[in-house]
Formats: sequence, C-alpha cells, structure tokens
Amino acid sequence: MTDSKTDARIVSTPSAYAYPLLVSQLLVNALSLSPEQEITYQGTTQGTTRYTYRAFRGRIGQLASALGALGARHGSTVAVMDWDSHRYLECYFGVPMMGATLFTVNVRLSPAQILYTLNDSQAEIVLVHRDFLPLLEEIRDQLPGVKRFVLMADGEPAPATTLPLAGEYEALLAAASPDYPFADFDENTRAAMFYTTGTTGDPKGVSYSHRHIVLHALTTATTLCSPRTGQRLHREDVYMPITPMFHVLAWGIPYVAILLGLKTVLPGRYVPAQLLALRASEGVTFSHCVPTILQMLLQTAGETGQDLSDWRVIIGGSALQPALCAAALDAGIDVFSGYGMSETGPIVALAQLAPGARPASREAEIAMRCATGRPVAMVDFRIVDEQMRDVPHDGRHQGEIVLRAPYLTEAYHGKPEASEALWAGGYLHTQDIAVMGADGSVRIVDRIKDVIKTGGEWVSSLEVEGLVAQVPGVRECAVIGVQDARWGERPMAFVVSQPGHAVDAAGIRQRLLDHVAGNRLSKFAVPEADRIVFVAEIPKTSVGKINKKHLRESLLG
Amino acid sequence: MTDSKTDARIVSTPSAYAYPLLVSQLLVNALSLSPEQEITYQGTTQGTTRYTYRAFRGRIGQLASALGALGARHGSTVAVMDWDSHRYLECYFGVPMMGATLFTVNVRLSPAQILYTLNDSQAEIVLVHRDFLPLLEEIRDQLPGVKRFVLMADGEPAPATTLPLAGEYEALLAAASPDYPFADFDENTRAAMFYTTGTTGDPKGVSYSHRHIVLHALTTATTLCSPRTGQRLHREDVYMPITPMFHVLAWGIPYVAILLGLKTVLPGRYVPAQLLALRASEGVTFSHCVPTILQMLLQTAGETGQDLSDWRVIIGGSALQPALCAAALDAGIDVFSGYGMSETGPIVALAQLAPGARPASREAEIAMRCATGRPVAMVDFRIVDEQMRDVPHDGRHQGEIVLRAPYLTEAYHGKPEASEALWAGGYLHTQDIAVMGADGSVRIVDRIKDVIKTGGEWVSSLEVEGLVAQVPGVRECAVIGVQDARWGERPMAFVVSQPGHAVDAAGIRQRLLDHVAGNRLSKFAVPEADRIVFVAEIPKTSVGKINKKHLRESLLG
Repeated sequence: MTDSKTDARIVSTPSAYAYPLLVSQLLVNALSLSPEQEITYQGTTQGTTRYTYRAFRGRIGQLASALGALGARHGSTVAVMDWDSHRYLECYFGVPMMGATLFTVNVRLSPAQILYTLNDSQAEIVLVHRDFLPLLEEIRDQLPGVKRFVLMADGEPAPATTLPLAGEYEALLAAASPDYPFADFDENTRAAMFYTTGTTGDPKGVSYSHRHIVLHALTTATTLCSPRTGQRLHREDVYMPITPMFHVLAWGIPYVAILLGLKTVLPGRYVPAQLLALRASEGVTFSHCVPTILQMLLQTAGETGQDLSDWRVIIGGSALQPALCAAALDAGIDVFSGYGMSETGPIVALAQLAPGARPASREAEIAMRCATGRPVAMVDFRIVDEQMRDVPHDGRHQGEIVLRAPYLTEAYHGKPEASEALWAGGYLHTQDIAVMGADGSVRIVDRIKDVIKTGGEWVSSLEVEGLVAQVPGVRECAVIGVQDARWGERPMAFVVSQPGHAVDAAGIRQRLLDHVAGNRLSKFAVPEADRIVFVAEIPKTSVGKINKKHLRESLLG
Repeated sequence: MTDSKTDARIVSTPSAYAYPLLVSQLLVNALSLSPEQEITYQGTTQGTTRYTYRAFRGRIGQLASALGALGARHGSTVAVMDWDSHRYLECYFGVPMMGATLFTVNVRLSPAQILYTLNDSQAEIVLVHRDFLPLLEEIRDQLPGVKRFVLMADGEPAPATTLPLAGEYEALLAAASPDYPFADFDENTRAAMFYTTGTTGDPKGVSYSHRHIVLHALTTATTLCSPRTGQRLHREDVYMPITPMFHVLAWGIPYVAILLGLKTVLPGRYVPAQLLALRASEGVTFSHCVPTILQMLLQTAGETGQDLSDWRVIIGGSALQPALCAAALDAGIDVFSGYGMSETGPIVALAQLAPGARPASREAEIAMRCATGRPVAMVDFRIVDEQMRDVPHDGRHQGEIVLRAPYLTEAYHGKPEASEALWAGGYLHTQDIAVMGADGSVRIVDRIKDVIKTGGEWVSSLEVEGLVAQVPGVRECAVIGVQDARWGERPMAFVVSQPGHAVDAAGIRQRLLDHVAGNRLSKFAVPEADRIVFVAEIPKTSVGKINKKHLRESLLG
C-alpha cells in the first residue's frame, strides 16, 4: 500500500498525450460536424453579415495573426469595446486561443472607471467600436500601457479621431493569414477577465482560465440539454444572446452554442423592434436577457401583435418578477431564471422545473420559474449557517449560499484580502441568503448584509417588508436588524403610511402575528411595537433601492 | 509581454479553491436534487433490491469504511468479480472515491488470463460473487499479492469454499460507518483499470484517472442529451445497462446516469426474458448492449409479443448490421451505434442522425444508424493518411481514425513500447480505416492491418470481398494485399465457388469493373486476373473470422 503524493504508478503526470482543456477545443466539432452552420450579425448600419463556421474558424486565425503582428502574444491582455457582433465572438475564441487574455470592457461604466480597468488589467491593445472612440479620446493620455488601438468601423468609413489607430479590424484581418499556429498550453492560463463593480471601492477584476470556461460550457450544456421538454437547449436551436457580450462572457452561453454547433445570431446594439425582427427572420429559439429587456420586448411585441412562441429565454441579472413571468408565458415564451454572479462562472443554478414536476397551479409554476433555480451539474451548492453547517432542505430554513464548482473565480485581480473573504472556509461566499426545498429548488430571500440574525434564526428583511407592505394603509416599508442584548439582533421596521389611512404599530404587529399563526412567518420575525416606527420617507440609493446602510447609520445618531 | 511558462500573473497554480475533477463530484447533485431517486437490482435469487440515492450515498461511505478496515487505502487496487448489481455501482464510486483503483475483472477470460490480470494489476482485495468462487479457488495459490477476499453472497447463505474470506459484502457494510472522510486529491489519480485482450500476447492493462472519467461523463452527457428528438438521453429516462459492468466501465454510462439523477436498474446476470420483464416493470427507456444481446431480446420479445417502443438502445462492441437494425426499428426501438475502444474512454462517436437530417429512405436511415457515428463533443476525430494528413471529408477517401480527447488512455500498464505505438505522432491510433462525410458521419471500412495500400490509394479489403461475394457462383471470398514492385501493394482475391456454377477470374474482374464504371469502386481496387485465385476453402480463426494472417503466410511458401 502506498502514499498518495509520491506514487507515480497511480498518479500520472500530464504527458504529451494529455489533453488540456482549452477554449480552442470548444471548436473541434465545429469544422468536422457543422462546417456549413451559420453565424450572422445584424449591424446597425451595414445590414446583415452572414458566414459559415468554416469561415469563422478562418477569421479566428486571421485575428490571431493580426493581433500577433501588433505585438500581442502569450500573456498579453487585449481589451474589446464593441456591441454584440461576430467580431466579439471571434475575439471570444481568437484572443484566448493565442494565449492572450480577452478583457471585455464594460462600456456602460463611467470614463473614470473604464480608465481604471484598462490600466489595472494592463491592457496592451484595445479593439474599439467607432461608437466608443470619443470615450477613449477623453482618457487616452492616461493610458500609458496601451500600445495599440484597433478601430471596429462596423462597415462605415473611419471617423475622424485623435487616437493613433493601428488599423481597422476588417482591413487587418483581410491582410492576415488564417493559418495562425495555435498551440496547446497550460489549461490554467488566464483566458478572459472583466470587472465587477460593487457599491464601494474600485471595480474588482475577475478572471477565468481556459479550464474554467471549458468546464462551465460542459456543465451548462449538460444541464440545459438534459430536460425531457421545456426550459431546455438542443442541437437544432438558433441562439441569439440579448445580454451584452461584455457582461460575464454573456453568461458563457456563446461557448455552449459553438460547442453544440448552433446557428448563432449576433444582434449588434439592442433595439427592441430590431431584436424582434431578427428573432422572426433568423428563426431564433433560444436567448437570455435581463428583466428590463424582456419587458421592452414584450411591450413592443404587444404593440405590433407579434407571436413569440417557441422561444426559450433565460432571465438573469436581477430577479424575474411574477407579473413579468406571467406576461412572458402569455406571449408564448418558455421563460425561466438563471442564477450566478460575476465571480461564479457565472451560471450555478437554473429554474428548470424538476423532472416530472407538474406544478399544482399557474401560480406555482410561475413561482418555480421565478425562483433562483436548481443547481447546475457538479455544482456543490450549499445553504449554510454561520458555522458552515448545512441547513435542512425544507424550503424554510435560511442560510447563505456557498459554492464549489469547477469554474469559480479563484481570486480578485490583485486583491488578496477580498479574495480571502470571498473564499472563507474553502467555499465561495455569495452573500445571498436562501432556502432550499427537498427537490433542490433554491429561493433567495435576502442579501446577507440585510438578513436579521435573531434568537438563532435568520429572518429575511425582504420577507417582512413584503408582508408589512400588504397591510392596508402602508405605502412603503424598510426593515433592518438592530442590536439587541438578549437576541443578538431584532427586526426594526420603518413605515411610510398612506395619507388618509389609519394604521399603527399595533395593527401592523397583529397582521404579522396572524402570519405566524398561519405558519407563514417565524415568530422571531415580528418586530416589537416600539420597533415599528413611522417615517415621512425611506432613504433610497441612486438606483432607487432602499438605502439600508443609511437607515442603520441614522440610528447611530 | 511575457513568457508563458513562468508568469504567475496569467497561469494560476491550483489553489485551495481549485476544484479537482473527481468521481465524487458526479454525486454532488444526487443528494441535493434527487435524494429520493431509485436504484434497483434484480438478483437471480433474492428478488428486487430497491433503495434511494440517499441510501446509495450512505452505502458508498460504508463500503469505503469497510474496505479501509480491510487495509485498502489511497493507491490500493480493489478487484471486483460480479454480475451487474447495485454492489458494482457502489464500487464504481466508493473505491475510486477513497483514492483506490477499481479493477473490473473480466469474468469471461480464462482462469489463466484472470490470474495474469490479478497479479499484473497488483490487486490487494478481491470482491467476488459466489458464482466465481470456484474460479478463484483454482488459482488462489498463485495470487501472492491478494490479501483479502470478500464474498458477495447475493442474498444466499455463504457457500462452502477453501478461500479464506474476510467477510461478506452486506455484513461488512452493515457493520461499517457511512461517514467515511472522503477527501479531495489529484484528479490525475488512477480511478479504474481493466484489461484488453488482443489476438497475441498477454492482456494489456488500461487505466483511467478521475479526470478522464469525469470528462467522459460530461462530454457524453452533452452529446447524448443535445438532440432535439431521437437517439437521445434525458433527465426523465430510466436507465438499465445490458453491457457487463466489467466491460470498459459499461461504456461510462452509469456515471452519466448518476450525474443526471436517473432511476437506475441493475439487471444482474443477463437472462433475456428477465431483462424484458424488468424493462416493462421498471419502465426502462435507455439501455446499451452488443448486437448478440439485442438479437436475443428481439427474438424473445417476438415470441411473447412484447412491445419495445420508447426504448433507446446504443449498440457497441461490434458492428450493428442492417438486418438487425431493421428488426429493432420494427419492434419500436430507437437503436443506434456507438463507437470506441477499451483505450478511448470509450465513447468517441455516436450514430445520432445529424441535426435536422431527414433520411431519404428507410435504407438510408438504417445505414446512418449502423454507421460508426458522429464525433462526440470535444473529440478531435481525424481520418488521416500515412503522413498524418487529413483526408477529404467526402465519404470516399479512406484513412485511419486517430484521436485526441480529454479522456483517452495515456498508456498501457507497464508496456512502454505498445504505449508509444498507440500514440505515434501525438494522436491515439485506432487502427480502424474509415471515411468521413461532409456532415461528420464516419463509416469504418476496414482494419488497418487488412487495408490494401495501392497506388497512393487505400482500398478496403472488406469492400472488395463484399462485391466479389455478390457475383453469381461465388460462395465466399477473402481479399488481402500482396507486395507489388510498381504499386506497393495490389489486392489479391481468394474465391470459393459454389458447386455447379460456372464462374471465372475474368467474370469476377468484369463485375468489379462495372462497379468502377458506376463510380462505386476505385479502379485500384480491382485485382488483376492472375490475382483472382480459386481455392477449396478459406482459412478461419477460432472465432470464425477469415484468417488473413494465415493467407498471407501461405503465399510466402
């Protein structure tokens, strides 16, 4: 019997025959199985670009050759600022395949933030759509590390600019060889990075290796393809992302689409009527977007009487609300939630109905589609208390979602302390508080900073807010935890009443106790009468959310 | 700009947060999503065993605890000799999860071969079904490395045996703790091994690491689940292997089934009527087997008038013949071929119809289902000439199938020369000669040792044999390549004529030339008249195949 660490007989060293997990390998089937499959791009000005997977592969080689000629090599960072285009998809493959890092710049950040991220990422080359030239002109003097700018003219004549351009994307590709000598390398090589912005501090860099991207694609493909019917992806789908490709690698789905050989439609800049026209003309059957986009699409489709059936749409970015879900179902869309964060690959749960599940009612079905979802294949998805013990999977006990999976971010770029906090105890901490049902369905109830820990129970501030808001006479409510010598914390409710309605603390308390009696609320969640206070207004953040930090500080005096 | 090998900034070292690909992780969803899913076993004597995934996980812990008490540890080899049972499935997980190697003993080999493999594998513990005790008793004195034998009594009283038994499987589990402390370790650790027998020499040991098994499961799941309809697997399937679990990890599908949370039915020893009864009573919808088993099942079902619809069955082991395929389709089975070898994980191709394919005729559909298949996701599946250049994908140019994939065997156990030959040029050589169509469909036409290389073309000996056999008056034909000063090799046909029929070399040659004129055969494939010789009989091997080696040697005089 032998020791594990030293026995070459049972632990093999990766050899010449090993097969590292590289982004290039997501392409291997493309040429043998689907060489004639289509990729299309709907530019805002130049009409439709349409080419085959075979041509796509050639252009990836040309892109790498062109970037190599501009000085990019293994280890370089290449930044992209573009709308959703075939060019972006080419960069998703070509930049990592040459061993460089694709930095997907969030073009919605402020110029100061973009400046910070371009410098922090050590970007050497920036590929920039004509629309974002003015932004770069503004910060260009503060980008000492950027050696080259490449224009994406998008079919238009090159605009006047003070930026020193190294060339135009299409012209550079046309002059470059498709036969770039892509080689194998360590699968832990960084393939892509981007920045996540919190409420405080500088944006934090998140990166993914080739191995992360490939394993995310395989587990996501397995999970999305495996349902018998409904909430699924299959080989005959036509895919169109409606999540910007700078956002968490558009959730990794473009890699899944190419792996499966799907016709892929890149819609350019998002214009609802154009998106719907593209969906119809290209036969799109699978997409993903944020709730706001879905809302706009439904409204536009309603105005023009368009049929949206045979369209499966994953909703991410923020929670899918029941009313929006119902409207989408009415329009014929098979809509369902996905869950993840910039740090998690990102997809770690999908709100697919459980195998064989027959929801008891339309409300139950909507609740399942709007829930956080069920864990993706191989994702070790735990709901734990403060001692990292699993809470019961009974749909009632709350805990923090902590994760292990083969594709989670290992660290924030250059921020060891934040990285350590992210991975306390060997699991990635999402800071989301949730419950899990017996069938693995997860529902987020709060953020950890807002949950109230009282008498050994975790109380969702959002849940109490929702119930208080239902009390007649209440216009708005915010609940936070306040320190309590006996219970650790206790909930405190700030209530704005409706003018002309009689509502008082005792009345609110009684309504909450009714919910306790009905087994719909923990008794620990009911604030004492003196912790239900009436205020003229609730403080809000710049994006309209309740500013709980401000509420907490106001209590400190 | 930086060098790839040394830059910690872009190549991350696997850290505490890394997630090695381990067999244990194929189980992570089982408990959160499918704790109540069923595993059933139909023993030959004790009736049906039925338990949940939750119980399965507990028994895996008990198995590891029991094996640990018997001395098994990280690096040990544990051999199993059993029919297809829940015990075998427990060993598929429990043995690798403790860092030991599962050795699946081929109980159909001769006692001398089993002796060789038990010693060569350095097996320390053997778990043995009562049916195989006599076999072990016979060789026991020659197994110095085996320290423990564990009986699998299969619900019967322990039989009399001269083997020194360490205990009975169920009794050992009942006394052991389910809380075995499974830990993470290097994903390149050997998880399983078995032996492949060629026509010459000792059996060769083939092993797979945890990483291999996990990646095979993910790519197979992706490929099997992704069709829109037909030839697919989904989350609501009920799975029953009908390939012995000692055979290439039953093609890796049991791992896929547990990953997807499928109800899994283990049928014990194969008895056609029992298999069909189990299929009906347990609602089995997905299986795999060799053609011989399919033939027996169809015959039994035909005799008893059973309906076999809603059953998808992959055929492997040897080629699916059109007549058998047609009979299976008539019985309602969605039957299709899988391709792989002991050395390839094994599945590298599946005969799924291409996306959107509508075969022009029943014959065309049967041909597609009987073909070698289309490459599995991420399998770099090439057809190459002797200089390793890809042949055109036109369905006509022949070459050897060579492979790269994330789960191929890296070496034969203790056989460096055979391993180097297997991996000549950095690709695994299958020694199968095939053609590939424009849609990636592969069809094997010959084995490399039988293909005839003439005038720069590769001619399939099987193809010529088939065409000669169609000539009226020909009873049988064998074709081999013979040396030729000008062409390298030329085909030579050995023909057995039917008594009372007039057939001569010129007539056979003319029929072949007709096929050349009809563009159905290369002109290089037609033997000269003096290379068509009539013989009284064709030499055969012990299993009834044409003995081409003998034919070649007979020409040498």
